[in-house]
Amino acid sequence: MSAAPTAAVLLIGDEILSGRTKDKNLGFIADYLTALGIDLKEARIVPDIEAEIVSALNALRARYTYVFTTGGIGPTHDDITADAVAKAFGAPIDHDPRALEILLAWFRQIGREPNEARLRMARIPQGASLIENSVSKAPGFQMGNVFVMAGIPKVMQAMMEEAGKRLSRGVPMHSIAVTVEAGEGDIAKPLKDIQDRYPAVIIGSYPFEGSRGFAATLVLRSRDGEALAAAEREVKTMAEALVASGKARGWS
Amino acid sequence: MSAAPTAAVLLIGDEILSGRTKDKNLGFIADYLTALGIDLKEARIVPDIEAEIVSALNALRARYTYVFTTGGIGPTHDDITADAVAKAFGAPIDHDPRALEILLAWFRQIGREPNEARLRMARIPQGASLIENSVSKAPGFQMGNVFVMAGIPKVMQAMMEEAGKRLSRGVPMHSIAVTVEAGEGDIAKPLKDIQDRYPAVIIGSYPFEGSRGFAATLVLRSRDGEALAAAEREVKTMAEALVASGKARGWS
Repeated sequence: MSAAPTAAVLLIGDEILSGRTKDKNLGFIADYLTALGIDLKEARIVPDIEAEIVSALNALRARYTYVFTTGGIGPTHDDITADAVAKAFGAPIDHDPRALEILLAWFRQIGREPNEARLRMARIPQGASLIENSVSKAPGFQMGNVFVMAGIPKVMQAMMEEAGKRLSRGVPMHSIAVTVEAGEGDIAKPLKDIQDRYPAVIIGSYPFEGSRGFAATLVLRSRDGEALAAAEREVKTMAEALVASGKARGWS
Repeated sequence: MSAAPTAAVLLIGDEILSGRTKDKNLGFIADYLTALGIDLKEARIVPDIEAEIVSALNALRARYTYVFTTGGIGPTHDDITADAVAKAFGAPIDHDPRALEILLAWFRQIGREPNEARLRMARIPQGASLIENSVSKAPGFQMGNVFVMAGIPKVMQAMMEEAGKRLSRGVPMHSIAVTVEAGEGDIAKPLKDIQDRYPAVIIGSYPFEGSRGFAATLVLRSRDGEALAAAEREVKTMAEALVASGKARGWS
């Protein structure tokens, strides 16, 4: 089995760090990449400060197959992502003729004045390819292994669909979940024994407070279907034994 | 005005990166710190891999006044945060007598067996102080400038209240928001002019699609009340001018 492509996400924007905006993009991108068999390994959130964006971008793009950024590509003064990407790559940046064409045609169609601020959205680092924006036209772009997308969830999602066409896919990671109505403290020992026997399966335990007390969802993930099925059987047997011994109220 | 304390958040857990769990902790911590006048400058999300946690922790704790971690302090095999923190600080880790006392009393009270897995939750790096957990007792801890908290939102929030008592506060950042029903492209130029005149005010523009088309929420943030009030007046005058010229449908 060849190694899966890896990815990082870089969310750019003061509004997430101030608490004003609750991010919805990371979860979408995580689900999207997981479905393609690409392992999301890290995410970072940085403010609208060029040096911070450049530094995070350079750390992440050197380390992972792909980097996906969201935010900071609009027409206002706080939209500095395109310039930061150009700086990270040491590339010149200017109005891109392809992006200008798209934007001018769009502004003509909807009767908007193509002013200097709007045309800032055509600033694309030299060497980048555009990422189509079916929602509001102003394109994202791909520079090397970095995909630069909008921050508005609907626009980001449209760009992710376009970016997705260009990505190498991995063997999808399959996952199954078993919920056990027991304290994690009673699940931990038998669960670790199963984890030790199935190194190809990643087993996580996620406790929560259910209507009848604390419970845990046990998530098994693997690219190896046989190992996953075998580990799943063992986890279910474990859950039954916990119920039989009175340590679990039930499982599903 | 003295510099505000700074902070970073480190969210630890495979489940956020796989998309299975949509994080709710960052937004809470961001709001909490903002109310205390502490500037959240960066956030990172890493998987349940010790080397990744250690590396991120060491990068963040060297750079910011405070670091807040969530996740990975339960009793199961994937809970490795306490050991990673000990490793990051080069400190020994063992069962902490204070934590053991809390846990043993609690298990006695609720009739739970104090097995090896449960007692793992008493493993605390040497030199750390405990952070009380009023919800499920197993404590978090503070090691140097790092606050280690649970991943379950309700438990994390209880720990954040405790951690909050130990934090230096800054002058609170005040913020006001003006929503303009116009394309950002028409707002950008006059808004940048206001930003240029008020360097003590951080102005962000957050576009969204409203019921009558694209609009933008303009957020002004500052520790300087007078500058904020003056910039707010200018933004409102700008909004009125955009409406008068037909470029905005309204503002509020």
